[in-house]
Formats: sequence, C-alpha cells, structure tokens
Amino acid sequence: MNFDFNEIDSIINARSLAIIGASAKPMKFGSLYTLSQMAYGFSGELYLVNSNESEIAGRPVYPDLKSLPESPELVYITIPATGSIDVLRECAEIGVKGVVILASGFREAGEEGRRLEEEALGIARAGGFRIIGPNCFGIYNPRNGLTLLPGYDFSKQAGGFAFLSQSGGFSAHVGRLCKGLNIGLSAIVSYGNGADVDESDLLLYFAEDPQTNIIGAYLEGVADGRRFLKALKQAASRKTVIVWKVGRSAPSRRAVASHTGSLAGSSNIWQGILEQAGAIDASGVEELCDVVLAVDLLGRKPGRSLMLAGGGGGLGTYGADLAEAEGLAVPPLDDDALQRARTILSQAGAAVGNPMDIGAPLVPLPLFEAAMREAAGQGNSDILVFDMALNFAYGLGGEQGLEGASDILIEIRKETDKPVVVVLYSRADSSEDLALEGVLRRQREKLLGGGIPVYPSMSRALRAISLANR
Amino acid sequence: MNFDFNEIDSIINARSLAIIGASAKPMKFGSLYTLSQMAYGFSGELYLVNSNESEIAGRPVYPDLKSLPESPELVYITIPATGSIDVLRECAEIGVKGVVILASGFREAGEEGRRLEEEALGIARAGGFRIIGPNCFGIYNPRNGLTLLPGYDFSKQAGGFAFLSQSGGFSAHVGRLCKGLNIGLSAIVSYGNGADVDESDLLLYFAEDPQTNIIGAYLEGVADGRRFLKALKQAASRKTVIVWKVGRSAPSRRAVASHTGSLAGSSNIWQGILEQAGAIDASGVEELCDVVLAVDLLGRKPGRSLMLAGGGGGLGTYGADLAEAEGLAVPPLDDDALQRARTILSQAGAAVGNPMDIGAPLVPLPLFEAAMREAAGQGNSDILVFDMALNFAYGLGGEQGLEGASDILIEIRKETDKPVVVVLYSRADSSEDLALEGVLRRQREKLLGGGIPVYPSMSRALRAISLANR
Repeated sequence: MNFDFNEIDSIINARSLAIIGASAKPMKFGSLYTLSQMAYGFSGELYLVNSNESEIAGRPVYPDLKSLPESPELVYITIPATGSIDVLRECAEIGVKGVVILASGFREAGEEGRRLEEEALGIARAGGFRIIGPNCFGIYNPRNGLTLLPGYDFSKQAGGFAFLSQSGGFSAHVGRLCKGLNIGLSAIVSYGNGADVDESDLLLYFAEDPQTNIIGAYLEGVADGRRFLKALKQAASRKTVIVWKVGRSAPSRRAVASHTGSLAGSSNIWQGILEQAGAIDASGVEELCDVVLAVDLLGRKPGRSLMLAGGGGGLGTYGADLAEAEGLAVPPLDDDALQRARTILSQAGAAVGNPMDIGAPLVPLPLFEAAMREAAGQGNSDILVFDMALNFAYGLGGEQGLEGASDILIEIRKETDKPVVVVLYSRADSSEDLALEGVLRRQREKLLGGGIPVYPSMSRALRAISLANR
Repeated sequence: MNFDFNEIDSIINARSLAIIGASAKPMKFGSLYTLSQMAYGFSGELYLVNSNESEIAGRPVYPDLKSLPESPELVYITIPATGSIDVLRECAEIGVKGVVILASGFREAGEEGRRLEEEALGIARAGGFRIIGPNCFGIYNPRNGLTLLPGYDFSKQAGGFAFLSQSGGFSAHVGRLCKGLNIGLSAIVSYGNGADVDESDLLLYFAEDPQTNIIGAYLEGVADGRRFLKALKQAASRKTVIVWKVGRSAPSRRAVASHTGSLAGSSNIWQGILEQAGAIDASGVEELCDVVLAVDLLGRKPGRSLMLAGGGGGLGTYGADLAEAEGLAVPPLDDDALQRARTILSQAGAAVGNPMDIGAPLVPLPLFEAAMREAAGQGNSDILVFDMALNFAYGLGGEQGLEGASDILIEIRKETDKPVVVVLYSRADSSEDLALEGVLRRQREKLLGGGIPVYPSMSRALRAISLANR
C-alpha cells in the first residue's frame, strides 16, 4: 500500500470506537481491554459489542456492529483470531476507517495463521480500511482518550514523543515509564505483525504529524527494506528518531519469527543503516526512554563537554571514568574559576575542580547555590551534571533540604539556560524503606517539571547524553 | 608494615569502642556517627567522649579517653583533622588496638595535610596501634554491632560478603543495597586514604577470615603495586574477588588525587592485572552487587548456557540479543522437549522454544508450573532465566498470583538444583504508583529468600551471570 497520511490519522485520532468482544469477565483480553479503555476515558463515542453480554458497568452492549447507531471510525477486535474474519466482513459492510486486531494466532503461528492473516488483509483492502496488528496491544493517544491494553492509568497529557512497537509489552512499558518521567506522548502504536500498517507507514506518519517531534521505534524486522530505509531517512531528516532493533543474534531471530513472524534480516548492518540515516541506535526500554528524556529537555546534540559535580568524591572519580568511556569530556576548570570556587567551598572535605566534590551531598543552601552557579557558569562545559546522593542528602536536610537544592538547580537552569542533569539514585531497596522511594519520586517529578532530566545512575545519565549527541 | 591478621581482626571485631567528638548537635559528622552507632546498637562497651558535652540521649559523655573505666579496643575520631593528633597521642598513652579517623583534610588536601597524615602514622607506629582512614566512613560489622557513618539501619544479619572501599559514600551505598538484596555481609571497611591499613592488608585479612567467602573492593589507587598484586592473587586463589577500579581516565585521576590522595596508576593495565589474578572486573555499585548476588546464589562460574523464559515475546527477542553480547548461549530446545512443551503451552500467544514465550506474564498456575518444570529440565542449559513482567502479572493475578508463581519457581529451584534467575522490573515510576513498588519489593524478598537472584532488568541479569563466569 502507498502511504496515506489521512488514512492513518483517522485511525489514531478516531472520534468513535467500537470494541468487539467487550466483556466484564476477568482474565480475558476482552475484559482487560474494555475495562482499560473505559477507565482511561475515550473522548468520542464508545460502543461495546458482544452478542453474549447485554451490559457492562451500566453501559449497553450491542450484539453486533450493524446494530450500532453509527458506523464507528475505529474498531478494536479483542476476540480470538478465528472469529475475527467474520467481524472484518461486517466492518467492510458498514464502512469503517480502521481496525485494530489484538489476537495472536496469525502469521507468527505458522501456515494456517498466515492464511488467516492474508484473508484478513484481503477483506480490509476490498473494504477500504486499514488494519493495525494483528498480535498487538493497540493504540494510545491522550488527545482523544484512546488507550492500549492495559493502559488504563496512562497519562492524560499529550506531548511530542511518538512510539511505535512490534511488542505490546514494551508499548505498555514505555507508556508507563513516560508517565513517571513526565515525557508527554503524542501516541503509542503497538502494531504487532504489521500485516497492513507497518513501521514504514508509521515513521512517515509521525514525520508529518505536527504533534510529534521525537519518534521512538522498537523493531523486530521490517516488511520492506528499501521502503523502510527511505521512510527512516525522511523521518530522521525532520524529527529525532531513536530505534531499538532486536533480532541481531541467532536465538533472537528464532524468537522474532515466533513472536511477530518477522524476518529480522542481517544483523550487522543495522548500526550502519541507523547512523547513515541520522537515527539514534538505542537498546532496551530504559535506554530508549533515557534518550527521549535527554533530547526532550536538553535538545538534540546538547554537547559532549561536562561539568560534573556532587557531594562525595567517589562520585566524581567514577563519573569521569564513565564519561571517557562514553566519549564525553570533563575539562579542567580554568584558574580564575578554580580560585573563585575554592573561596566558596573552603570547608574540609570539598575538592574543587572538575569533577567538583562539594564535600557533602547537602551543604548549607547558600553555599550550595554559590557553588552550583560557579559550576554552571563554566564556559568550557556544555552541561552541568549534578549527582544528588538521595539518602545522604535526606539524612542531612530532610525532604525540605532536598527541595531547597532542587529549587536552586531549577532556578539556575531557567536563568542561565545552561542544561542541567541530575543523578538521583536511591539506596532504599527493602520493603521497609518504601517511604524514601516516595521522597525520591517527588523530587524527580519536581526536577523534571523544572526542565531537568533525572537519571537513576551516573552511567545511565552519561549514556543518554552520549546518545543524544549521535 | 607487614600484614598481621590479629591486628586487623581486633579492630574489625572490637569488643569495646570509644567515640571522640560524640555529639547530639545536628549537621556534624560527630552527631551523625554517634546517633548512627547508638541506633544500630554496638554489642560491646560503647563510650562517648567529648569535653564540651555531658550527656547524649541519657548516656554519660566522658571528657577524654583517660577518664574511661577501661582502654577501649577501638577509637572512632569524628573531630576535624587538626584536633586528631592530640587524640592519637592519648590513644598511644592508654594503649588501644585501633583508631578510625573519619575527618578529611589529610594527604588528599595538600602539603600540610600530608604532614599531618605522616605525624598521625608516626604516633600509631610508636603507640603500637593501627589506623583505618583518615578520610573515611569507618567499619560495619553486624557480628559485633559496629557500624559506619551513616549505617544506622544496616542489616543485623551477618553473611559472607566483605567490601573494602576508599569511598565512604559507596560503602554506605553497598551496605544499603545488600540489605535490600538479602546479601549478608561479614564487614564493610571504608578506609579512605589508607594511610596505614590499606587495600593489601584488607585483601589478605578477608582472604583468611573464615566468615568471608566473597570479597568486593572499590579502589582508587594502590599504595604498593607489587604488594597489592601478591595480595590480590592470594585472595583470589581462596575467595571470589570482585574489583571495581576507578581512576582509569585523566579527569578521574585528577578527582582521585583530590579525593583520597591516591595515585591511580596506569589505566590500561588494570583489566590484565585482574584477569591474571583470577579476579572479576566490575564497574559501579550496582554491577558489583549484582555479581555478588549471582556468585552468592548461583556459585562461581555457574555456566554460560541459558534457558530464557517469560510471558511476552519481546522479552525473549531482547534477552537473546543481550545474551549474545554478553558471551552467553541460548541453545535451541531438542525435539522431544519441544514436543512436550508444545503440549503444555498450546494456547494462542505462546511460542515454544528457547527463548520460551509462555503467552502471558501469568498463565494459570498449574500450566505455569508445568511449563517451568519443562524449561528447568533442559539439559543443555545451565541456568533458567525467567522474566516476570510485574505490572502485567499483577494485573492478571494480583499479588496472590505473583506469590504463587514465585513459590513454584522457588520449589523448582530447590527440588531440581537448577539455578534460577528472575528478572523483576517495575514500570511504576510516578509517586502515585508507590504501592506497586511495595509489591515488587515483597516479591523480590521472597524470591531472594528462596535462593533465586532477582535483577531489575534483563541486561543487568545477563551481565551479572556473564561476570560471575569470568
């Protein structure tokens, strides 16, 4: 199929939705999806369809698509694969824009499944609508209140990050992580086997979509290599594109085949392909979201020269080693700055330089502010990275002390326009220590809201900065 | 100094302790340490010493060491560097076994500090006692209730892991992490500048210590290269030794000099040195503890062949890629096993093989048990790695469902003696989601208690397994 922006747009921004197989019975995809979508709150018309149920949580349930008062733009099919063909025929009859098929049991399941998938595709082509999936978790779009399985509590706030994924599990994982990281999403599309709408369509769509400025993709294989390369280049020339490609090893390719029936393709060429297209090559859900956060708050290519600061000398020694390994620089302070900083941090235990050890994780706030202003003022560094040892700082100043330090960093970030990154790790790991995890999360939310990316370790912070510069 | 086991043993297992500079005034190391030690509960005699205070929390405070009813075996000096010389002279007079100096302002602070450190050392040599530090956080030993700054809530349970560290911050971090990971410690020694007792002494000590079977070390530099290499080889021939060496980059070497005044030495030879000695080369607090956990519960060199299982196909594709990158194998199932597993996992969505996708993160428990027994029974794999997608599994079965799955894995681990590793990550990241973090921690504690290492991501799990095989 040729790419058509409006076709895909009418699915992602659908104004009416029907759920086939809507159910209130537990442990079924149908009920999980129905309850998720109802809890999240679709902003358009939502129709529940199931010939065996008549009411779900006070809402009427229609026996079939033809009984609905209107033709819905989008239809989610939550019933098993074999029943989906009849539903697709109904969709063609009443005229819909798009269908999402959640069920597995298609191409990835062998010859019979492949025939089923081809039949489904034929009905969609003839009926003039597009398919997302099968073998997927669906679409999340906070603008129209559409959500995927099981995104009942995803963020309501839209942003500029779009994620497309062959894995439903990773789609849900990214949605949840982004909520915690305050990364606004334009949409998540879990497209599974990609029988119809595939990665190339979605890349081209988000490249044009005015709401989106960063595109992330989890790929197992690509349907059409040449078309994909063209779409990737086009998307990366307009937006930041971050790709996580699996299936690079032989056992992974076996798993890919049985997961989405994709051909993972030759493994070694991927790095070259992504580099050539100007896309960022990431690995894993966490790393992908880490880079999105960096690009979102620091910008693309924020610079490779760091000013490292923190309370505790070990942080700097380790940070500097990691920086070198990531191709980042930690330039020495110039003599004037060194003199000024020494006057500020004159107490025992502080070690002035780059890395800068302020002596303790939380020194009195006026001193902290003066030292951080000096560190942020370094002309030879692009980014100030501050390591905030949560447990210590909390011990020294309580949550109030931490909040004061966060406020200062946020103020400096706003006033000076110098990018600031905070490392905020927890040493609270036992179930008795849950309260401190709450402190950590509140601090992180505060810093993120102030435009400061927060990472749980120095290594993840520096890796994200390094990748944002690719 | 020559190594003397008993000298160091009488410090680490001290039966009486005096704190110089004991205080109840907030924001001072003296009060932080005193309150930490009192809260943790030293099992021997504890004496508080400060000429300016007379009582702390109902306990008497002595004006000086000479006023104590006995000579304490160990003395913690928590006052600033310049005051410590007089105290050391008193220590020599009354005859103690060892002194811990917390203060910075010695060798790492320049020429004057270097002279102070040499003077301190001269007094100790003449007085017949040993010094830990200066510029350190002290010693943690759950067997006599000794704790370091600020280890007031460290575990009371002793185990076989000893950690020696030039960084106080990382010492505290490791203590806290180990508590959450159920890793029992024999001791942590934060030795800072290592003016007297150094890394070689501590390696030799823990190599002989019958309580210790795994030794971890955070090193910035070594006092005597030849002596260190000998000590390292000796320790690694008797125990598992894991070394995290910083100062491998130029800015890190600058930071090392101002942190503990150490010479980090040539950077590129470290990998070779560690390999030759049979020690494991780790990087970062998390990675170090991850390896300790693997060695503790799976044994040293547990094998490089994995059976990967989980609910969700993306997990396997990613896991297999990571395995290859870490030098681990994911061998295909043999035909018989494939047939048996297919009979068990016949529902749509499951994909039988290695990796094995059980279809959903939590299938009905009898099915889960049968599938896991099949996976654990694979003769061509050394370790079963199960990816337990917390959020999904919780959504499907609540905490009870997760507990049932954990119980099954623990039972299989015990019955079959097959090493099992669980990946238990959370997608709960916002402050509203704290309850799920509690579920995660309880599950982790349960699994750890059942002999199953738990990691927060597949990448950390596979890296730990890989390093344990070095």
